[in-house]
Amino acid sequence: LNLPRGFLASGVRAGIRKRFPDLALIVAPDGADAAALFTRNRFPAAPVILSRAALARSRGRVRAAVVNAGCANAITGAPGILAARRVREKAARAVGCPPDEIFLASTGVIGVVLPDAKVRNALPAAVSRLSASGLEAASRAILTTDTGPKVASAVFRDGGRLGRVVGFAKGAGMIHPDMATMLAFVLTDVSATPEFLKAALREAADASFHAISVDGDTSTNDTVLLLASGKGGGERLGAAREGPEFRRALTKVCRALAEMIVRDGEGATRVMAIDVRGARSAREARLAAHAVATSPLVKTALAGGDPNWGRILAAVGRSGARFSPRRVALSAGNLRLVVNGCPTVYREPDAAKIFARDTVPIRIDLGAGNASASLMTCDLGHDYVSLNADYRS
Amino acid sequence: LNLPRGFLASGVRAGIRKRFPDLALIVAPDGADAAALFTRNRFPAAPVILSRAALARSRGRVRAAVVNAGCANAITGAPGILAARRVREKAARAVGCPPDEIFLASTGVIGVVLPDAKVRNALPAAVSRLSASGLEAASRAILTTDTGPKVASAVFRDGGRLGRVVGFAKGAGMIHPDMATMLAFVLTDVSATPEFLKAALREAADASFHAISVDGDTSTNDTVLLLASGKGGGERLGAAREGPEFRRALTKVCRALAEMIVRDGEGATRVMAIDVRGARSAREARLAAHAVATSPLVKTALAGGDPNWGRILAAVGRSGARFSPRRVALSAGNLRLVVNGCPTVYREPDAAKIFARDTVPIRIDLGAGNASASLMTCDLGHDYVSLNADYRS
Repeated sequence: LNLPRGFLASGVRAGIRKRFPDLALIVAPDGADAAALFTRNRFPAAPVILSRAALARSRGRVRAAVVNAGCANAITGAPGILAARRVREKAARAVGCPPDEIFLASTGVIGVVLPDAKVRNALPAAVSRLSASGLEAASRAILTTDTGPKVASAVFRDGGRLGRVVGFAKGAGMIHPDMATMLAFVLTDVSATPEFLKAALREAADASFHAISVDGDTSTNDTVLLLASGKGGGERLGAAREGPEFRRALTKVCRALAEMIVRDGEGATRVMAIDVRGARSAREARLAAHAVATSPLVKTALAGGDPNWGRILAAVGRSGARFSPRRVALSAGNLRLVVNGCPTVYREPDAAKIFARDTVPIRIDLGAGNASASLMTCDLGHDYVSLNADYRS
Repeated sequence: LNLPRGFLASGVRAGIRKRFPDLALIVAPDGADAAALFTRNRFPAAPVILSRAALARSRGRVRAAVVNAGCANAITGAPGILAARRVREKAARAVGCPPDEIFLASTGVIGVVLPDAKVRNALPAAVSRLSASGLEAASRAILTTDTGPKVASAVFRDGGRLGRVVGFAKGAGMIHPDMATMLAFVLTDVSATPEFLKAALREAADASFHAISVDGDTSTNDTVLLLASGKGGGERLGAAREGPEFRRALTKVCRALAEMIVRDGEGATRVMAIDVRGARSAREARLAAHAVATSPLVKTALAGGDPNWGRILAAVGRSGARFSPRRVALSAGNLRLVVNGCPTVYREPDAAKIFARDTVPIRIDLGAGNASASLMTCDLGHDYVSLNADYRS
């Protein structure tokens, strides 16, 4: 899979991780318009602090993104900021642009200052390997506990030609609404203002990255970056309603990446697609979906393929959403398990069959209003514990 | 250990669980003044609904408590209420009191109607085995995935004699502030009004059952019942400031039970005592402590004895508590790990030693105010997954 017009990429080994490529470089030789979403964690990592400020100063222009795995450079104070700045300076010289047009992102262990000399020493190799076919190498160099690269693409009509949206991401642990410890880079050849890109990215993220949960933790390093090279040939998009085909393609790519992330949640073997309806407000619908999606009891039952719907409703019951128990209904796939707050008569093997699927579709109707919310979560099994009980060793 | 004066108890097999005693009976032959705390889950179980109403109608008088394990009788609609009522009627006849003086509690699988015939058939045996030394049998008959009975006692000066407080509890899964799926029964020979008992129980619960978390789930069946036989011989306690020695003994018993519960969290091998200080408000201190206590990443790191403090602060960062990262400090035991938002220079083996303890003491100072909160949580290891992935099978 090639990159959209106007982009080059590469992935190399900087030596932060022991045995894997850990430095990705994305370059738009003629620059790109950019929009980004960052973590809301109160401990934003050094690259998040710097990139947010740089993007504001460059007014949404990015020439290159430098992404490392193996070290989050979060909660590292002034030394962390200085280390990230040194990487930025070096990258700006290597690519030939102002430092404010360098975008930084990091993922890995928290509390360790980025070994920036390793990154700086590896930058020349990263620059020399830049190519239009560098997507795969870049997509591999940002991974941590992911089991494999996550890449998605879509096309859309852009003036007389076909425009492209190509994205790659890393996820695995700490995935959660508000985008915790997830990095995603989405490249397109569309021409658009940074403001338009920001609105389109928000819309796409709400339907994708914000609708998944792996473990309820949200990280210090979350970043989604959207870059538009403008090489597609269509009109420059600016007004809110413009570019519906581009926006659909963008949402499609973000949704595909988000689903790959939740399916590749640490140790995940199965996902639950939670659909809450009949809530009094969108906020309460989200509260209910969130309580189910983050319940360790629900997630371990899901790991075992156990149709233990009592745990699902117990989570809804403590979520803070208001409803009358007598009006609540619950279905798994086409099987109605609870109607008017009472269990139905169903055959246990029928329920077990649905809970053994790769995707377990759960619909909860609170019977209290018209608001709804959807959230996809993964199971919590032994592999999650194994991966996280000794992640650093 | 004998029961306080004025109480008898027994534990028998009703056949709800396969191989274990599953029916406990507590009787105060001359009645007792009572106060209870119930779950706040919006799906309260049938015994919770009935006991809350009965306690209001009897104005805080209880003659007997009937407790079963193996079936929660929650989310069971009208059939569940009818089943619980039949148990109550039969118990009232067996003990010789109005039905409103029978207190019911259940624990076990959600969504299954109580097999009330089994309970009713076992009640005569439970009555015939009542004795002042029935505490151990009763404490065993309420367990589910607990590894053993949880009993605590304390004495206090009551007039010229020694008064006693004796409690027993079950916990294990779904333990959380707001007391999820935990049953606790505390018996005392003090003489006190139901209003006084309610206030004393709230005070004790805030410092005990509400300060522990196993997995963030809160159940449909949580109940703490305090019964006072008045056989101790002291003055009847009524006003708020009275009985400080009794209240201290009550809090001591509740704290001991709560600590037993969190240490016996499903599959738990280690606990973390989280102490948040310097928050802008008590609410924000609790938010921060809660985020740490329920973080799967923190809990799995705890299982591995991994001093991965970055996960602790990442959880604080997403908790909603407001602070400046530059003012945050973090210690484990006597070891300062973060000062002014920056990692200190410490020897990794020193940190590892503290995180390998049975109790890992963590202090987080947000540097933003004077409010504080404490919470005790347990680790999340393979045994939690094993127990919960196939609990019903």
